[in-house]
Amino acid sequence: MKNIKLDYSNVMDFITEEDIEQEKKKYLEARKKVVEKSGEGSDYLGWLDLPKRITDDEIDDILETAAHIREDSDVFISVGIGGSYLGARAAIEALSPNFYNMSMKPQIYFAGNSISPRYLKDLKSVIDGKKVTINIISKSGTTTEPALAFRMIREWMIENYGQKDVFKRIVATTDSSKGALRQLADEEGIKTFVIPDDVGGRFSVLTPVGLLPIAVAGIDIRKMLEGAADGMKEFRDEEDIAKNPSSMYAILRNILYEKGKRIEMLSNFEPQLHYISEWWKQLFGESEGKDNKGLHPTSCDFTTDLHSMGQWIQDGCRNIIETFLNVEDPESTIVIGMEKRNLDHLNYLAGKTFRYVNEQAFLGTRAAHRDGEVPNMTITIPSISPYYIGNLFYFFEWAVAVSGYMLGVNPFNQPGVESYKKNMFALLGKPGFEEQSREIREKLSGQKKFISAGSPGKAEVGAG
Amino acid sequence: MKNIKLDYSNVMDFITEEDIEQEKKKYLEARKKVVEKSGEGSDYLGWLDLPKRITDDEIDDILETAAHIREDSDVFISVGIGGSYLGARAAIEALSPNFYNMSMKPQIYFAGNSISPRYLKDLKSVIDGKKVTINIISKSGTTTEPALAFRMIREWMIENYGQKDVFKRIVATTDSSKGALRQLADEEGIKTFVIPDDVGGRFSVLTPVGLLPIAVAGIDIRKMLEGAADGMKEFRDEEDIAKNPSSMYAILRNILYEKGKRIEMLSNFEPQLHYISEWWKQLFGESEGKDNKGLHPTSCDFTTDLHSMGQWIQDGCRNIIETFLNVEDPESTIVIGMEKRNLDHLNYLAGKTFRYVNEQAFLGTRAAHRDGEVPNMTITIPSISPYYIGNLFYFFEWAVAVSGYMLGVNPFNQPGVESYKKNMFALLGKPGFEEQSREIREKLSGQKKFISAGSPGKAEVGAG
Repeated sequence: MKNIKLDYSNVMDFITEEDIEQEKKKYLEARKKVVEKSGEGSDYLGWLDLPKRITDDEIDDILETAAHIREDSDVFISVGIGGSYLGARAAIEALSPNFYNMSMKPQIYFAGNSISPRYLKDLKSVIDGKKVTINIISKSGTTTEPALAFRMIREWMIENYGQKDVFKRIVATTDSSKGALRQLADEEGIKTFVIPDDVGGRFSVLTPVGLLPIAVAGIDIRKMLEGAADGMKEFRDEEDIAKNPSSMYAILRNILYEKGKRIEMLSNFEPQLHYISEWWKQLFGESEGKDNKGLHPTSCDFTTDLHSMGQWIQDGCRNIIETFLNVEDPESTIVIGMEKRNLDHLNYLAGKTFRYVNEQAFLGTRAAHRDGEVPNMTITIPSISPYYIGNLFYFFEWAVAVSGYMLGVNPFNQPGVESYKKNMFALLGKPGFEEQSREIREKLSGQKKFISAGSPGKAEVGAG
Repeated sequence: MKNIKLDYSNVMDFITEEDIEQEKKKYLEARKKVVEKSGEGSDYLGWLDLPKRITDDEIDDILETAAHIREDSDVFISVGIGGSYLGARAAIEALSPNFYNMSMKPQIYFAGNSISPRYLKDLKSVIDGKKVTINIISKSGTTTEPALAFRMIREWMIENYGQKDVFKRIVATTDSSKGALRQLADEEGIKTFVIPDDVGGRFSVLTPVGLLPIAVAGIDIRKMLEGAADGMKEFRDEEDIAKNPSSMYAILRNILYEKGKRIEMLSNFEPQLHYISEWWKQLFGESEGKDNKGLHPTSCDFTTDLHSMGQWIQDGCRNIIETFLNVEDPESTIVIGMEKRNLDHLNYLAGKTFRYVNEQAFLGTRAAHRDGEVPNMTITIPSISPYYIGNLFYFFEWAVAVSGYMLGVNPFNQPGVESYKKNMFALLGKPGFEEQSREIREKLSGQKKFISAGSPGKAEVGAG
């Protein structure tokens, strides 16, 4: 059986074996903190053995619920934000056809991850008249975005199904005993799944948070958990970095950070991996972006974005490293045909597959970016399958835990996420935020600088 | 009539009025280069007066073709990469409902912007049996990605419509006289539109490249051109920065770059603006990312990404500035209802609109990021309408031209985009690349460093 590989040839022009040897000490300390649960934030290490901790009964419960939803719904809406939707969306988009809502039943939508009225209005018109089941995913049940969307969608559902039956079309993934959503579920007999206390949002894809929506999409979650369980052996249990591509990835990105690199771009050549990158951005950005530290995680879909961001990557500020997410066998072949006139000069590719051409694009890009002084690594997964996506989830989870400790931060908290919320609650006049409300209003009423476009006569400048 | 506004209050804690005064000299020089067409790359300044140069006849031709396509097609496929699709996609997604392919006719797909076989295969199954019209957009007709997709989709169409009728279902946007696509169009009587010689891809949204697909989506392109034409007066013709938010934006981002900032994030609070950011990333990344210079353009959709990238923005490396793209009136209201039990504690918002809550989220975020030492500006458009999207296109086009010259680069070339192509052609054995082919194969066969995951026995390390 093939395994995830890390190719770091294109890093070794920028660092030395000694750098790696040096960094290994930090790695061993960081690894110890994770394995022995002795580091900061170790109350949130539940993800470490999730793939083994989940029971057959729990998996069966998820599968049965998913089967019922698939049978009984035209539309499934996953209501959650951040870690409560990104993992599920990443797996679903990677493992379903492109444009899946044009061909799959049930259609799958994500809501409660913004406060846009247009988005909700358009969602309403798309689901109108259809049989809808929703999965509300929230530990507390009071997070503004999902709670607001849940209120609205419930209202529409009550109009369609009546006050009583609506609760049969809701599944809640929430705390085991406390919080608003738990209380509602208990009072109304809503089917629930539990978010473990010791797993943070961005590490929750292999709990019911991710597994239920993924199963609703018809994806084999047992295989996914199998891939993650093998990841425990391959990444958690393997101390030797020469045998551990996940730990080596953590080490190399830290060395490059120490050498002044400030941006890491995750680049794929299959557009279905787009949301794997979005999930990765949260995982790394939220785990490491603190104490004024941490690589800025960004992503590209190639070759698409080679025609937009390619110029900057090739020749812009040299503060970037790149990690390619490569797929050995994307399991689809389209053969390029011969064309009589050959006006487009593509007959030299006749008989070749798109996959082959795409692979040469990848190899060519990787070499070009190295020549452009962008140190880069390649993580290769054998195929885009449930097993390897599960394995990849664990690969990155292990890597970020080690990497965060090596960086000297607590990889398991996210204090900065509260800042906008506090301001927002103060501005909205939420009960309990009266003092902050006065403060922020005063602050925002201060001197303002703005310019308005327009014919000279109309322009405004300055305090206003 | 309202106009685009720039609020830079949250920059003034990080720079001084003197900095602006200082930078003004550079601005005036840069502006002169653009207006007098005296700078590097001035052969590509055709975008400057596009909104005025386009004739009524040309607009009518686009509108009539679009009307015919709308009437006669279930599916419209725009085949192009980079600037040949991003502008159109940006306008279409901003100005159409979310999930537009679930409700609009014709459905609109974008292809030829990657080499993914899965994408093409899935596209084929979605369009199967439907009446399809394609718009192939390529100056040369030989760019690998769109040319390959064009070959494949044409093959499918020939199967469905026969060799003769297929050309009636193709519109080509290409060079006026030369190139593979022009030749094919002339030989087969394909309807064509012309890409002007003096307009680069990333500046081409207001040529038929962008206007035809946008018109096919039923969007009022006259209004869009009107907004852009007013932009000529507001941004190009207005030297005084106190009356010119576009020029002021260019100045401020250059000052912040000079002070060591390296990343600019464009953040919106309406998910429909996602592709405006993608278009912006090409415009700024490709124009400025050269000679080892240029802010790294990245983007977020809020509040969504506050729950993924929010932590990094708030507390990570302080090398980032943020530009908010704000919408004064998103023209949709959903009012939050009162709920008897109020388990989610949201009744304090009852009677308020989603728009109001979203706006407080914006104001709260902007203040939080300023407090987190992220200098930020806000570009406010009065509404998401064809007029203001056209106005905004010109706003950014003017800004990047001035900004690029201020940075000391040629904002109108993109030499770095060729690097991956050359390698790819060499690896693919394209005729004419024989020598490069030998070179790169030799290079790639050198020492390799890779690690394979797996049980210890299976792991491989080192040269291979």
